[in-house]
Amino acid sequence: MNILALGTIALDTIKTPSGKRTDILGGSACHFAMAARHFIKVSLVSVVGQDFPKAYRDFLKKKGFDLHSVTVLRGHTFIWKGEYKKDFNVAITRRTELGVLPRFKPRLSAHQKNIKTVFLANLDPDIQACLLGQMHNPRLVALDSMNYWIRHKPKSLKRLMKKVDIYFCNDAEAKSLTKEHNLFKAAEALRKFGPRIVIIKKGEHGVLLSCDNAKMNLPAYPVKKLVDPTGAGDSFAGGFLGYLARRKRISLDNLKKALVYGTVIASFNVEKFGTERTARLNTKEINQRVSEFKNIIPI
Amino acid sequence: MNILALGTIALDTIKTPSGKRTDILGGSACHFAMAARHFIKVSLVSVVGQDFPKAYRDFLKKKGFDLHSVTVLRGHTFIWKGEYKKDFNVAITRRTELGVLPRFKPRLSAHQKNIKTVFLANLDPDIQACLLGQMHNPRLVALDSMNYWIRHKPKSLKRLMKKVDIYFCNDAEAKSLTKEHNLFKAAEALRKFGPRIVIIKKGEHGVLLSCDNAKMNLPAYPVKKLVDPTGAGDSFAGGFLGYLARRKRISLDNLKKALVYGTVIASFNVEKFGTERTARLNTKEINQRVSEFKNIIPI
Repeated sequence: MNILALGTIALDTIKTPSGKRTDILGGSACHFAMAARHFIKVSLVSVVGQDFPKAYRDFLKKKGFDLHSVTVLRGHTFIWKGEYKKDFNVAITRRTELGVLPRFKPRLSAHQKNIKTVFLANLDPDIQACLLGQMHNPRLVALDSMNYWIRHKPKSLKRLMKKVDIYFCNDAEAKSLTKEHNLFKAAEALRKFGPRIVIIKKGEHGVLLSCDNAKMNLPAYPVKKLVDPTGAGDSFAGGFLGYLARRKRISLDNLKKALVYGTVIASFNVEKFGTERTARLNTKEINQRVSEFKNIIPI
Repeated sequence: MNILALGTIALDTIKTPSGKRTDILGGSACHFAMAARHFIKVSLVSVVGQDFPKAYRDFLKKKGFDLHSVTVLRGHTFIWKGEYKKDFNVAITRRTELGVLPRFKPRLSAHQKNIKTVFLANLDPDIQACLLGQMHNPRLVALDSMNYWIRHKPKSLKRLMKKVDIYFCNDAEAKSLTKEHNLFKAAEALRKFGPRIVIIKKGEHGVLLSCDNAKMNLPAYPVKKLVDPTGAGDSFAGGFLGYLARRKRISLDNLKKALVYGTVIASFNVEKFGTERTARLNTKEINQRVSEFKNIIPI
């Protein structure tokens, strides 16, 4: 049983008050996969350039990912250079080099087309739709996007939203798509665009979920030292969807547990740079923090 | 059994996207009392001017408050005129008229000096200390303040913090007092100033608590329509302390329940202007929302 994750694999250069890392492994698909792997095998669908370090490819292989649909194209890998100052909520992008990304057309193996759970990480909605069109009857499709696509390809994005079960976004994106300040109302408005489950990520303030029969609100796990928030949202999605992919039913109870696992894995993600922490994480550590987290919530 | 609440009684003129109210009953002591009264009889310690409407005084009496120490001085009642735009997190103060407030010296009856639970709502820390000095061996003292006093009377405030059990503040005040961005770390730093329990109010993002053996993090109740956030923090404190005042022990379990009651009562407060909602609230409605709230938290 696999989960399919479409998204970027990137070389990230990140500066935060805790230090700096150059050309480390990053990208939405990568962060998602490092979280989801604790529950399920991940098939990555992405693209890298010829410059992509062999050590990174070997590392991903060693982590157990299916790399069959990670295309290598002539040119350089997607690069993001960013900085966080004291206010970790704001990522300051210093440089983005798309490299091979604009020429990327996802292609799946026959086996991959039958995978039942799909995550479309933030990417051009036309590429996301192209992948989704290749899938044979998936059971659960989740979509993430970003302000850039909301502004530049709103029609493609809204067309795609009709076809997915779960939509992930952050609070600013939810407000911008719906013009609604009340986040639960924004989530309800987003559900009218198609997805039956909407999840709004609020960074250090946690996450909320809206679906037909319920709304849920979970604070973040209070990390002792925030080092690098890059990829926290994708780690959350990885923990959330990875957990759900293994469950028979998308019941309210399973959604609740998925929120907790997503939150806990994202909390590990931000404690070190890039995937340094999630790549070394084990199930015992996750479960230990889940119990600890439950103790913190006074309910 | 009573709780003592020192703070302002004000005439508020408030404009929000939902409408406007002129000269309605407000002030920290008033909002606190309207919440705490659901658990315990409240003795108010405050001051009003000769212009304070008899109808308001009668109303407060009818609500069951002990008004023995609500002094009437020559001059006008404290006035606050404020506005909230779409972003309800920011109160825009249009006008503040202190009126009789600067001449206020709290004086207690012999009975009031023996009250065991005390709330020092936001006010000049020297006045707060003056009241606390009159109390005979209180069991639980809670303190609230604001940025103005942090800036203008930091020494008085820090002297007072040594003498209280609980310190309430909002996220901006916590950061400004401790120079710490991580709110749990800020709470721990604040505990070193004296109070054994620190509660940081994060508005729509809920509330966190730090004490010797535990930390707690609770999201806000998602209100359907936010009308007027004025007094939400004092309502929270009222629900929280009112609940605790009736308990034999300040156990972790009681602190958890107190956070939930405070949060739920504050959520009613913001659904109408001023004290319109909390003044009409009953126990059945509170308990109903407590159950509903617990269902929203996926733990």
